[in-house]
Formats: sequence, structure tokens, C-alpha cells
Amino acid sequence: MRDGTEGEAAPRSREDFEQALRQIGVDRYHDKHPFHQRLHSGGCTPDQVRAWVLNRYIYQSHIPLKDAAFMSRCEDPDLRRAWRSRIEDHDGGIEEGGGIRRWLKLAEAVGLDPDYVASSKGALPATRFAVEAYVRFVRDMPLLDAVASSLTELFAPAIHAERIEGLLAHYDFANDVSLSYFRKRLTEAPRDVAFGLTWVLDHANTREKQEAAAAALTFKTNVLWAQLDALEYAYVEPGRIPPGAWTPGEGLLG
Amino acid sequence: MRDGTEGEAAPRSREDFEQALRQIGVDRYHDKHPFHQRLHSGGCTPDQVRAWVLNRYIYQSHIPLKDAAFMSRCEDPDLRRAWRSRIEDHDGGIEEGGGIRRWLKLAEAVGLDPDYVASSKGALPATRFAVEAYVRFVRDMPLLDAVASSLTELFAPAIHAERIEGLLAHYDFANDVSLSYFRKRLTEAPRDVAFGLTWVLDHANTREKQEAAAAALTFKTNVLWAQLDALEYAYVEPGRIPPGAWTPGEGLLG
Repeated sequence: MRDGTEGEAAPRSREDFEQALRQIGVDRYHDKHPFHQRLHSGGCTPDQVRAWVLNRYIYQSHIPLKDAAFMSRCEDPDLRRAWRSRIEDHDGGIEEGGGIRRWLKLAEAVGLDPDYVASSKGALPATRFAVEAYVRFVRDMPLLDAVASSLTELFAPAIHAERIEGLLAHYDFANDVSLSYFRKRLTEAPRDVAFGLTWVLDHANTREKQEAAAAALTFKTNVLWAQLDALEYAYVEPGRIPPGAWTPGEGLLG
Repeated sequence: MRDGTEGEAAPRSREDFEQALRQIGVDRYHDKHPFHQRLHSGGCTPDQVRAWVLNRYIYQSHIPLKDAAFMSRCEDPDLRRAWRSRIEDHDGGIEEGGGIRRWLKLAEAVGLDPDYVASSKGALPATRFAVEAYVRFVRDMPLLDAVASSLTELFAPAIHAERIEGLLAHYDFANDVSLSYFRKRLTEAPRDVAFGLTWVLDHANTREKQEAAAAALTFKTNVLWAQLDALEYAYVEPGRIPPGAWTPGEGLLG
């Protein structure tokens, strides 16, 4: 091992490596989290749904910052050109459209003041820390790791479809307008992830890089999971809301 | 002064401050540089024009990275939405358009292989250092400084108009295709700078911030000036091309 090559494992086959990435989703994606189960089965109180919506806004609203951080490191114009639509999808145009505005429609539908939600006041510190860790990861780590960390989108369409169905079945606020964010992602995410997955499979051409890519995807599942842990801790048992975080009754539509 | 307020100067009026910013261009913009004068008056040899085109490509091709670095720090979605067109202008679409592709048309017109130019091989290290300093500045400094550093675009339309006229008058390679980059910037830059200038005038609401904004714009004029210094040093007197940098005869169209 001292010479840096002896004993180095051969890369996995493309198929095996893709399967290993997909297994990370099976084992660790946040659809396995108790809060997710509670939300989708109709077991959340209106306030728990609100807590989820306003915290998750922090994540949604930082996705374009993350994608811009990625583009700020891409010396290849073609890679930037392919990546740019992610920012367009989330930010939308000057006047309308975009996932962030659609998320604020959901906020309104659950009775929250969208300006309050957009102010980010009331979000759990743990939410912010997780989201900021993701933006920093994409800004600082090798490009391969940065792309690999986006591959949770492999697992997203299933969760979005399940989310639409579960929310529609169980909550009065659920309708075409309030759930438009998830419907839109059903078509956007597969396009993005097809590009990202191919890029990762093409570029992870050594065992070391394959392991780095898998670690990056694992990191990203932690970013998502930690956000639900924080929600579950703060808003399911009484008396656990940290100082300064949203409390039921705050930030409601007038 | 010890308490941080005593003796602090009042902010300049909006008009005075704008005038101070414009004066930076009068004093320091790179249209005053000898290499610029040489280029526009027809005094450059074909190889000196090529050296300029291939080095300036480094600057052009990093503008979208700089703008993405800016967006990666913007928590305000509206500011990101307004800024995004800068990346679109330079990168263009997946298949066509954009300032980078237009610059490569200029490269072809002066007899350089656009793939060689796009590879960035042969650029002067000093060019790269200056450009990287700009991207880092925008990534790391306060948003106000980052926006202010873009305000060299206040001075760009004049230089582009002069450049089109000077190049058309003096060089055979100059025509509508090869100069399309500059023509396009005649309309893009004023729109961008109108936004940036208003933003800086609105946000630099203390004397300290006004001075920081002026320093940022000065920094940016240095980024541009240093690139022409390096060209003038390396390619005007013989025997000064640094190791590894482009030499006449290299990277030509086949």
C-alpha cells in the first residue's frame, strides 16, 4: 500500500456501482424516517405539518445556492449549461414560477404567512446547520462528490408520488395548488438525476472515486435525515421546542 | 474614534458617490493602458492580437463562475433571479449562443484553433492569477463589494464601441461574426450595470460601505489592468514570454 497502488481494489463494474448507490437510498433515504411515515399516513397534527413546511423551506430555498456553488467551480461550460436548469427550476423567473414560489403556496395552504416562512425566522437551528453543511460540501468538495451528493433525486420521485397521494388522502389543505411543488418535481427530478447519474458513473473510474461518490451520497442522506430528526424531536413530544424556534400560533395567515 | 462612531464621516450624497465611482473609471479603467491603445489603433501584430484573444478568453470564460459564486451567496431569491441572466448571457444555451462561444468565433477569426483557446493552455499565469483573484473576491467578500466589483461595466460600452470601430478600421479579421461578442455586450452590459449601480447606491448607506464599494471597483480595475500589463510585458518586447505560455505559431487553425 505504501506505493499507493499495491493492494488497491479494482473499480466495481458500472452496474454494481450503480446498484451500490441505489442501495444507499434503500437503506438511508428519509422516506424511512418516522416523521415521514407520520406525515404521509395523516398522523401529523396541523402544527406538525406547519413545522415541516416552514423548516423544509430552508432546504428548498438553499438549493439554488447549492447549484450556484457547484457552477462556480465548473470550468467546463457544457457542464454549467446542463446544470443551470436546476437553478431555473427552483428560482423561477423574475415575476413567477419556480419551486420556491410553489413551496410558499403550500405554506399558505397550511395556514402560514408566506412572508413569515420566507423570512426563515422560526426555523430550527438544526435545519439550518444541515442545509448549510450541504451548500458548503458542494462548494468545497471535489466535483465528483458534489455531483454524487445530488443523487438523492434518484429516490425522490417515489417519495413525491407517495407524498401527493398521502397528503391528498389525509389533509384538507392538499390540492393541486398546494401540492404543485411535488407534481412539478415528478418531471424535473428524473431529468436532473439521469444527467447526474451518468456523469457520476462516467467519472468515478477508480474504486477510490466510487467510494468517495458513495460517501457523498450517504452524506446527503444524512442532511435530509437530520432535518426530520430535528422536527421529530422538537414538535412531536411537548416541551422540546428550542429557544427562538417557531411555536404553534406564530406566523399564521392574518 | 475609539467608540466606533465619534468622528465617523457622514455618507456622501447619492450623486457624489455615483460620481466618485465613475471617476474610478476615468482614472483607472484599462482603456488607458498602452496595450489597449496599441490594439485599437491597429498597432498590434497578428501575434499580439492572438495573445490578447487567447488570454482574454480566460477572463471571459470565468465570468459565469464569478456570477455563480455571487448567486451561491444570495439568500434573496429576487436578487438571484435578477442576476441569473448574466450567466445565461455568457454561457448561452446547451447547443448555441453565449459570449463564450462568440469569443471563440473571434479566436477563429484571428487564426487560432478554438479548441486550443478553450483548453486554456498557453494563457499567461498572470492572467489566470488575476481572473482567479476576481472569482475569489466575489465568493468571499461582502455582497456589496461583490456587486460593486461588477461596475466596470459602467465603462465597458464605450470601450466596446471603440473596439469595434478600431478593429474594423485596422484588421482584416474584423467583421460582424468575429466582433459579435462586443456588439452583443453593447446591449447586455448597460442592462446589467443599471441594476448593479442602483443596488450599490441603495445599499452603500454609510461612508464606510461607500468606501468599501469604491475599493471593490478599484480592485476590479486592477484585475483588468494587470492582464494588459502581463500581455504588454510578454508579447511586445521579444524574449519575455514566460515558460509554458503561448508562443507565436502554436495553436493555429489547421
